Amino acid sequence: MLSVNIGRIKRDIDKICEFNATPGCGYTRFTYSKEDALAREYLLDECAKLGLAVTIDGVGNIRARREGEDPHAPSVMAGSHIDTVFHGGKFDGLAGTIGALEAIRTIVENDVRLKHPVELVVFSEEEGSNFSLPLAGSKAMVGRHDPEDLKKLRSPDGRSMYEAAKDAGYEPDNLPREVLRPGEVKAMLELHVEQSVVLDSQGLSVGIVEAIAALRLYETEISGVPNHAGATPMKLRNDPMAAAAKTIARVEDLAKKAPSGTTVGTVGRIFCEPNVPNVIPGKVNFTLDARDVDEPSLEEFVEAVKKILKEEATSHGVVSEMRFLGGSKAIYLPGDITGLIESIAKKRGISCMRMNSGAGHDSCLLATVTKVGMIFVPSIDGRSHVPEENTRYEDLETGCNLLLETLVELAR
Amino acid sequence: MLSVNIGRIKRDIDKICEFNATPGCGYTRFTYSKEDALAREYLLDECAKLGLAVTIDGVGNIRARREGEDPHAPSVMAGSHIDTVFHGGKFDGLAGTIGALEAIRTIVENDVRLKHPVELVVFSEEEGSNFSLPLAGSKAMVGRHDPEDLKKLRSPDGRSMYEAAKDAGYEPDNLPREVLRPGEVKAMLELHVEQSVVLDSQGLSVGIVEAIAALRLYETEISGVPNHAGATPMKLRNDPMAAAAKTIARVEDLAKKAPSGTTVGTVGRIFCEPNVPNVIPGKVNFTLDARDVDEPSLEEFVEAVKKILKEEATSHGVVSEMRFLGGSKAIYLPGDITGLIESIAKKRGISCMRMNSGAGHDSCLLATVTKVGMIFVPSIDGRSHVPEENTRYEDLETGCNLLLETLVELAR
Repeated sequence: MLSVNIGRIKRDIDKICEFNATPGCGYTRFTYSKEDALAREYLLDECAKLGLAVTIDGVGNIRARREGEDPHAPSVMAGSHIDTVFHGGKFDGLAGTIGALEAIRTIVENDVRLKHPVELVVFSEEEGSNFSLPLAGSKAMVGRHDPEDLKKLRSPDGRSMYEAAKDAGYEPDNLPREVLRPGEVKAMLELHVEQSVVLDSQGLSVGIVEAIAALRLYETEISGVPNHAGATPMKLRNDPMAAAAKTIARVEDLAKKAPSGTTVGTVGRIFCEPNVPNVIPGKVNFTLDARDVDEPSLEEFVEAVKKILKEEATSHGVVSEMRFLGGSKAIYLPGDITGLIESIAKKRGISCMRMNSGAGHDSCLLATVTKVGMIFVPSIDGRSHVPEENTRYEDLETGCNLLLETLVELAR
Repeated sequence: MLSVNIGRIKRDIDKICEFNATPGCGYTRFTYSKEDALAREYLLDECAKLGLAVTIDGVGNIRARREGEDPHAPSVMAGSHIDTVFHGGKFDGLAGTIGALEAIRTIVENDVRLKHPVELVVFSEEEGSNFSLPLAGSKAMVGRHDPEDLKKLRSPDGRSMYEAAKDAGYEPDNLPREVLRPGEVKAMLELHVEQSVVLDSQGLSVGIVEAIAALRLYETEISGVPNHAGATPMKLRNDPMAAAAKTIARVEDLAKKAPSGTTVGTVGRIFCEPNVPNVIPGKVNFTLDARDVDEPSLEEFVEAVKKILKEEATSHGVVSEMRFLGGSKAIYLPGDITGLIESIAKKRGISCMRMNSGAGHDSCLLATVTKVGMIFVPSIDGRSHVPEENTRYEDLETGCNLLLETLVELAR
C-alpha cells in the first residue's frame, strides 16, 4: 500500500510558513506578495525535482503535470491554495497543496504506472485578501473572470488584480487561451482543513464532502430616529438597535429549528450610528450570512427573515431594508467520487464521516467543468482564519494517504 | 406684567452662533476655543452695558451680578452653558444663557426693585466635548473638582483641563477660594431645551422639571468562540452576537413594562470582533445606559438585566461581564420652586406640564448647594445634539418670560 511521507509534508509546510509577512502573529501570505513569490519558488523547485511540466496562467495559477501512459487521456488534478487571510493559520490551503505535492511525489518516486496524467494545481487568491473577492484564481481558471473583469477587481489602495498580476510577472491577457478546456480534466481532488468543529468534536480523522452549501449574503439597514437616551421615554422611541436585536435574536431561533437541519444564519458584522452610549441610535446595519445545502430550505429561511425584519421594523416605528450582496448555489459532489473515497477510507480503516461543507472552496469552481472530490481533515477546536488554527499531523497524514490512493485510483 | 424682548434674544443667539468652528455643519463651540472666547467677549460686553459686576473663576465659569437692595441677601442665579457638542444645535445651552441675560436685562432696564442680587451664570464645559467629562464647570463651581482633579482630566491629545484653562487665561489654582459658599445663593434657575419629544408631541410650550433621573452606565462584554459562519452548525456555536441580541431585545421589553413607568434603558454603542460577515463573532461589547427618577426601580431594572445577561450567556455557552462605568443619583427639585413656576405659568396662561429630565444639567450640581428650578422648552421633533436641533421662538419667548417672572419673584 502506497503511503505519503508525513515528515516531508511537515518540512514543506514549515518551509513555506517561513515566508510570512507577520511573524509571531499567525501567517500572512497574500497572493502576489514577496512571501507568495518565495513560496512559489520553493514549490516550483520541488516540482522541478520531480520532473513535472509546469505551466502558470495569467493570474498565477500553477499546474505541474506528470504525464500518463495514454497521451490523450484527461488528467486528474489535485491541489489547493497557498495564500492566507491576514494573521491566518498554518494549514488552510497549504495542507491540500502540500498533500497533493506529496501524493504526486510518492507516485513519481514509486514509478506508479498510470494511464492518466496527474497534476498538482495551486490556485491564486483563494482567500480574497487582496481584492475582497474569494476564489478569484479558480474563477479565472474556469473562465469566469476575463482580463476586463480583473481590471475591475480592486484592492483598497485602488490597484486592480489585472495590474497586480502583471506586476508579479503574469500575463492576464493570455487568460482566454488558458481556460480549462472541456474534457481536459477527468477529476479534481482537494484536501482542506474543515474550518469548524464537526470532525474534532467527534474525534474523526477525515470528512468526505458530499455537498457544499449554497450561500446568500445580505446587508440589512434599519433607520430610526436618534435621540437622547435619558430624555426619551420608551414609548416615544424609534430605536433601530432594539429592532435589530429582536430580529437577530429571532434569526438564531429560526435557523436552529429550520426543518432541513442544515441551515445556518450568522450575523457577523454590525455597525451603529452615532454609536455613543447616551444616544438612541439613528441607524443600525448588520449582515446576514445564510447557508444551506438544501436550497429550498435556504430560500424559505431567507423569506422568513425578511418577514421578521418587516414585523420588527413596523412594531418599532423604524424603516428597514435588506440588500442582497451576493451568493452561490449549492454544489452536490458526484456520488462515484464520494463513494470511491469512502471505500478507500473503509479499506484503510480510517475513521470518517460524510459531511457537508459550509465554506466555499476552489473545488466549487472546478465542479462547473469536472467531477470533484473533497477530503476534510479536522481543525482542532474548529479554529479557522486565526493564528491558533491547527490540525494534528496524524490526521493530515491519514487524509493525505486517502488523497494519494484516490488520485491513483482515478488516474489508473 | 414684565416681558422679555424676543427680538433681542434672537439677535444674541444669532450673534453668538456666528462664532462657530463648523459653519454649514451645525454649531461647534468648544470651551476654551477661539469661538468660545469670541462668544464670551460678546456676553461680557452685554453685561458691561447693564452695569453688572463680573467675576470669572478658575475654569472660566462667568458670574455677572446685579446688586440687590439688601447687601447681605443671597443672590438668585439664572443661566446655563454656551459650549456645544461637535456639530451641535443652536439652542442647547445658549437658550438658557441668553434667556437669563435677557431676563436680567429686562430687570435692569425696568429698574425693578429687588431685595436680592440676581446673577447671570455661564458654565464652562457642560458638554464634556473637550475632556469627555460632562458638567466639569459646574462641578468645579460647587467644589467637586479641585486643581489636582483638573490635571487628571485630559483631552484625546493629552492636554489637561488644568492646562487648557490656564492657556485660555484662567487661574485654576484659585478655584478653592472661588467655590460657592453655603448660603451664598438663594436659588438657581435654568431654562433648557428638552432634548426629546415629550413637549413637542403634546404641543406644550413649557415643561416644569420635577426630578432629574438617576443614571447607571454599564459596559457589557460577551466573549464566545469566533468561527466560520458557513462551516459551524447552529448547535456547535458559542456566538456572542446571538447572546447580545437576545439580551438587548429583552432589555427593551423589560424597560417598557417596568413598574415605575419612568425607566429607560438604551443600548447606544456596540462593537463586534472581528466584525466580518462570514465569521461568527468572537466578542461583542455594548453599553447599557439605564435611567429612572425612581432609584429603587432603577436598581431593580439593572439587577434584572444582569440576570438576563447571565441566562443568555449560559444558554449560548459564552462568557459575559457587565462593568459599571459611572452614574449619578436622582435629584428631586424642591416643591416650593416647582410650585412657584407652575403658579406663574397658570397665571400667564402658559400650556405646560410637570415632567422629569432624563438628561443631566449643570443645575444638578447646583442642587447640591442651593434650591434649583428648571424650565424646559420644546425641541422640535425632539432632535438634540444635531444640526437639526430647533426650538420655536414663540416657545422660547414663553419660557423666558416664565424664567423672568420666577427670577423676580424669588429675588423680591
